[in-house]
Amino acid sequence: MYHPISPNVISELVNIAGQAYVLIDGENLEKYAHDETEDLRYQPEVVVKPGNAEEISAIMVLANQHNFPVTPMGARTGLSGGALPVYGGVALSMERFNKIVHIDERNLQVTTEPGVITEVLQNAVIEKGLFYPPDPASKGSCFIGGNVAENSGGPKAVKYGVVKDYVLNLEVVLPTGEIIWTGANVLKNATGYNLTQLFVGSEGTLGIITKIVLRLIPYPQKNLLMLVPFSNATKACEAVAAIFRAGITPSAMEFMERDAIDYVLQFNTDIQIAIKDHIKAHLLIEVDGNNQDVLMQDCETIAQIVEQFECDEILFAETEREKNDLWKMRRKVGEAVKQHSTYKEEDTVVPRAELPVLLEGVKAIGNKYGFQSVCYGHAGDGNLHVNILKGNLTNEEWETRLPQGITEIFQLVIKLGGTISGEHGIGWVQKKYMPLAFNEIQLNIFRNLRKIFDPNGILNPGKVVD
Amino acid sequence: MYHPISPNVISELVNIAGQAYVLIDGENLEKYAHDETEDLRYQPEVVVKPGNAEEISAIMVLANQHNFPVTPMGARTGLSGGALPVYGGVALSMERFNKIVHIDERNLQVTTEPGVITEVLQNAVIEKGLFYPPDPASKGSCFIGGNVAENSGGPKAVKYGVVKDYVLNLEVVLPTGEIIWTGANVLKNATGYNLTQLFVGSEGTLGIITKIVLRLIPYPQKNLLMLVPFSNATKACEAVAAIFRAGITPSAMEFMERDAIDYVLQFNTDIQIAIKDHIKAHLLIEVDGNNQDVLMQDCETIAQIVEQFECDEILFAETEREKNDLWKMRRKVGEAVKQHSTYKEEDTVVPRAELPVLLEGVKAIGNKYGFQSVCYGHAGDGNLHVNILKGNLTNEEWETRLPQGITEIFQLVIKLGGTISGEHGIGWVQKKYMPLAFNEIQLNIFRNLRKIFDPNGILNPGKVVD
Repeated sequence: MYHPISPNVISELVNIAGQAYVLIDGENLEKYAHDETEDLRYQPEVVVKPGNAEEISAIMVLANQHNFPVTPMGARTGLSGGALPVYGGVALSMERFNKIVHIDERNLQVTTEPGVITEVLQNAVIEKGLFYPPDPASKGSCFIGGNVAENSGGPKAVKYGVVKDYVLNLEVVLPTGEIIWTGANVLKNATGYNLTQLFVGSEGTLGIITKIVLRLIPYPQKNLLMLVPFSNATKACEAVAAIFRAGITPSAMEFMERDAIDYVLQFNTDIQIAIKDHIKAHLLIEVDGNNQDVLMQDCETIAQIVEQFECDEILFAETEREKNDLWKMRRKVGEAVKQHSTYKEEDTVVPRAELPVLLEGVKAIGNKYGFQSVCYGHAGDGNLHVNILKGNLTNEEWETRLPQGITEIFQLVIKLGGTISGEHGIGWVQKKYMPLAFNEIQLNIFRNLRKIFDPNGILNPGKVVD
Repeated sequence: MYHPISPNVISELVNIAGQAYVLIDGENLEKYAHDETEDLRYQPEVVVKPGNAEEISAIMVLANQHNFPVTPMGARTGLSGGALPVYGGVALSMERFNKIVHIDERNLQVTTEPGVITEVLQNAVIEKGLFYPPDPASKGSCFIGGNVAENSGGPKAVKYGVVKDYVLNLEVVLPTGEIIWTGANVLKNATGYNLTQLFVGSEGTLGIITKIVLRLIPYPQKNLLMLVPFSNATKACEAVAAIFRAGITPSAMEFMERDAIDYVLQFNTDIQIAIKDHIKAHLLIEVDGNNQDVLMQDCETIAQIVEQFECDEILFAETEREKNDLWKMRRKVGEAVKQHSTYKEEDTVVPRAELPVLLEGVKAIGNKYGFQSVCYGHAGDGNLHVNILKGNLTNEEWETRLPQGITEIFQLVIKLGGTISGEHGIGWVQKKYMPLAFNEIQLNIFRNLRKIFDPNGILNPGKVVD
């Protein structure tokens, strides 16, 4: 289907990007063969680290001429395999695009290259009193470009929205080599079709993002954080919708099953939190703003509501240390589950009030197929991460039962008005489930959209939709 | 290019939609020949008022068979001519799609048909304590479907965002007749390309919207409104960015030049507002939330800031009546200018802090070409409506100088990082200026996107891009 990368093509790549940035040694091919998706490994034939958009443009022209695939890569922290070079070819690492171009304090905007670590970007704008809210759990290592490509979320999304709500404009190299901007640096835009939003979340299949213009908001000065234990996980989920119905929009509303926390505490002994035996789940709830009294009132209202759902004693974080510990606990869940057992992570999302039904459904499906699951995630958004554990299943049982179980979970999600990925994307590993979410008419629209931009199918092939 | 509608086609349309909903009399053809864009008139050959998505599907199949154009219409309040049947054919009026299907209080969502008047929808959800913020000036007459098609804004956009920030999912009849949903009823979605956002703002050229799922937020209980007069219009614009930089996000931040208010008061003698002779511009500033003390503090901060920009005595609205008067004054500007003179309205948008430069540029361009302009609009979003007045220009002068002046204004807008429409859309009348905002590569992407959905070019032809 694709042509192997020839020595001649390597020479051309060296001419374009420079000798130091074209790597074909085994160590590098292995390093760029994986992201954070399970244990998957797909080696590229060559790693290229371009330094600017013009070099990428030249690489794409070469790829079309010689018919080799190009897979753009950020920090390779993705969870759906979107950056895996499944057909070999060029691994196009964006790590040299690591400059924050301009923080525009007059207009509350930042222009950045895609290879900046999300938390670095956040800290840079906080220094100016500004806030870029989307904060995936991997914020300390992931790239902002990957966040845009996957339309990432994170805990703050419940109040502040996801990445798509902050992207104003993108510079993109098209698969055919042209360099375009997708929109304008404005808060409102009714000028032509919304190319910007078409590229956000397109998982590196429509073009390679080389510059990003984000809107910023004033940084909220204060926050309060509480951990609410429940003796019943379903009740915890029911409390979530009740809080929003009371007119409160927390800045985080995270759900964690008991097992999730137990695994974290087992692998992170520095976190000091005591949990009573009968507790089955927790909500981690944050409110933020600029007025301490208002936040205190919000917390009181929330406390009154959760009491109606059989909660236990609420822990209010009183120091920055306690806040950091609670957030660390939440962020370490994925990693801790991974250390505990072979697992498969799903990223279900449903309308918020359907969470209790989803949680009970997931457990029932697990019972049917004989697997355990650990559920946690952004409950305020209805976004439940379902980590399915291999546990004591044999390899054969795991390989046959898992796809059946996932299919049933996704069927339930869709029946509840939800969909199969809230923030991790489809990438490589969820592609086979796309027909559960979309019919052939919709899938054909996706295929045709892709063909407009990439007639030869050379950019990140194998991802999202075939 | 298109075939005339034959008696045979009329019979087929009657079979599909029913005799009562297929109109060919002169009065109706005239009624559906215009929207609110200047004095433009384009008669359709037949008006059809379908009752459900299946009927629209059948009409689209017929249109492809017989090669006639179909122009979807909401309440025909648009300002860029998007609903004008410029090539005749079928005027597809969505007025029978007038039901609010379901207000989902559990999930803070509403499912509505597109032919519901925006304010009716807003009031229905307010009764449940919920808020759908986007509020174009025409909210008392425009349809929510038209708002989605144009990605409308309005005064609240500055704090709450525009229509696109509320649309979760759309049911759409494609130009080829298939009926699809574009997404899912969820707050976060990383499942495939963002078809929902591709349809929002597509101005009725990619499909006909038949159901809309919107997210809602809790209704803010309190607001404060102030009118700030300035002796210098540029200073008023400068004050706008300063307020946001101070960390305050007002729920409205409207700019009005002196002339705009004078015209309104001339045509609306019931509004009682006295304006001193030396005043050149006003800012109408609203803050909202649930805590009166916080809002008072915000107003004090705003007052301190505007004083640095040569403002005159601030008027705080103390009663609901005063608030209504001030808002009425703002909303009537467009209409009042229209009554005063033949005019052309532009919908420029720039990064917020560039507003003073834009305003001065517009005036300089007016001086160069001999036309006056009245400027007003959503200053907090950098969205300035520029009404160019014919005044004493001869018809010939008007016709030759106007396009030159508009071209220069748009060139300035784009130089400032902005674009040519913030919320009114491109439609029919701005199409010729699209090459100022986009190059041929971008325009070709638009053309190709359209071709995916509408291979025969029968849905709303002549709009956005040729």
